[in-house]
Amino acid sequence: MRIITTVAEMQTLVRDLRAAGSTIGCVPTMGALHDGHASLIKSAAEQHGTVITSIFVNPTQFAPTEDLSKYPRNLERDTLIVAQAGGTVIFAPTVDEMYPSGFSTSIHVGGITEVFEGARRPGHFDGVATIVAKLLIAMSPDEAYFGQKDYQQTLVVRTLVRDLGLPCTITVRDTVREADGLAMSSRNVYLNEEERAQASSLYRALILARTMIENGERRATEIEHAMSATLLQIPGLTIDYASVVMADTLATCDVLPEKTNVVLLLAVRIGTTRLIDNMRCTVGG
Amino acid sequence: MRIITTVAEMQTLVRDLRAAGSTIGCVPTMGALHDGHASLIKSAAEQHGTVITSIFVNPTQFAPTEDLSKYPRNLERDTLIVAQAGGTVIFAPTVDEMYPSGFSTSIHVGGITEVFEGARRPGHFDGVATIVAKLLIAMSPDEAYFGQKDYQQTLVVRTLVRDLGLPCTITVRDTVREADGLAMSSRNVYLNEEERAQASSLYRALILARTMIENGERRATEIEHAMSATLLQIPGLTIDYASVVMADTLATCDVLPEKTNVVLLLAVRIGTTRLIDNMRCTVGG
Repeated sequence: MRIITTVAEMQTLVRDLRAAGSTIGCVPTMGALHDGHASLIKSAAEQHGTVITSIFVNPTQFAPTEDLSKYPRNLERDTLIVAQAGGTVIFAPTVDEMYPSGFSTSIHVGGITEVFEGARRPGHFDGVATIVAKLLIAMSPDEAYFGQKDYQQTLVVRTLVRDLGLPCTITVRDTVREADGLAMSSRNVYLNEEERAQASSLYRALILARTMIENGERRATEIEHAMSATLLQIPGLTIDYASVVMADTLATCDVLPEKTNVVLLLAVRIGTTRLIDNMRCTVGG
Repeated sequence: MRIITTVAEMQTLVRDLRAAGSTIGCVPTMGALHDGHASLIKSAAEQHGTVITSIFVNPTQFAPTEDLSKYPRNLERDTLIVAQAGGTVIFAPTVDEMYPSGFSTSIHVGGITEVFEGARRPGHFDGVATIVAKLLIAMSPDEAYFGQKDYQQTLVVRTLVRDLGLPCTITVRDTVREADGLAMSSRNVYLNEEERAQASSLYRALILARTMIENGERRATEIEHAMSATLLQIPGLTIDYASVVMADTLATCDVLPEKTNVVLLLAVRIGTTRLIDNMRCTVGG
């Protein structure tokens, strides 16, 4: 495994690899790798001679009240997972490398960032857009892989890459889930045993809502009420949002239009842990 | 002359040229080319096998009240100037190509954009930073050339490129001047004959201030008063600013520190035309 820690070294390596005929796939992560990340790395390794996994816990996408300091970090364990999944290079820069003294640039994607996670986590998506642009400029991949679990983030990344003209294909892969349906997430380690059992309620709520849509329900409030009711059976769970919106724009719709794609979006807090999940559905058709 | 109009075609061409062993120099412009631009293109042609001149009048760096619609455009004339200066490629995208429907990304450079041009032209430097990033991503040059006339812009571009990690050297060349010292600018065509004659007062004010510094004056207010007094001899001229500040940060200083670089910054209006100019000076040493 080649571990690179500076942008300059990364850019030199990529230029050399490309000159030697390799295409480049990359998987941007914040480390604490799980099977969801491994699945992305495997996908990339099937398509590209070089797979770069970036591991960088990006401070600017955490609000001051969030879990930056306790976010799990273990480069040694992550390196094993990358190797087993077929990754060949790790890009693990320091915070000082990515945000040197005097750093003063930020990237803002408008519109889709104003709702859901963007509304609840001030500055979060500016932090995401800025670091993703920097990582894609450093690794200049032909293709970058993201998990659908952070659904709104995938829309932000697609918009960012299209708007800046970064020469990179964005590929989004399905969320990988535990046996009981819980979406894999580095933050699941924060859950105690009871909370971990309760956390499968997000998946149950999503499946219920999807079934309602499949069975012909088109009223957004009915679908949202059903998801909320499922979630609120869990004592101590609080709901940030449980919504069904248009999949590409996150626009609300009182009645789901036929032959469109919608997305079910959930964010809840169980104890002190915030969890998100989502599911895309095709309406009718 | 090869004229490219799409980002995708530009990126393909650059990749092919680089694979064939050429290095790439670029000169981002808004067209209406003059000897200042030609001098940048010549500089680039001395260093690089390929010189790309971009010609794009960027609407997002004009405020609603500014001169976007009347900004001079003449691609045929510009093409001749590029060819004579040794440029080999022109990148002339349309507004729709650079800002397609749904475009919603902007780049903000903090700090140095809050004063002078940034304070007087709301949104101007966000527009500059966003388009320069897009142009550098499209042309991916080894080296990009800018004129010092837009001094604050050169600081913004340097910060942007460093912060995003764009693999590109930024080279700033001295302002090219008319015989009477007026800085070459595409906006000089707006001046009538009388105003054109008066416009050399900017250069006289800069030379006076530089001479004062060379002769030992260190009080910023004395230097600024002298520049203002020179400018205000012109009837109908109004001053936006006439300042001496630290060259790298644009920070004010009551007393110019020895062995530092400062910059004299001027912005005035003559009739309806706004002109800017500047001069870097080393203090003592």
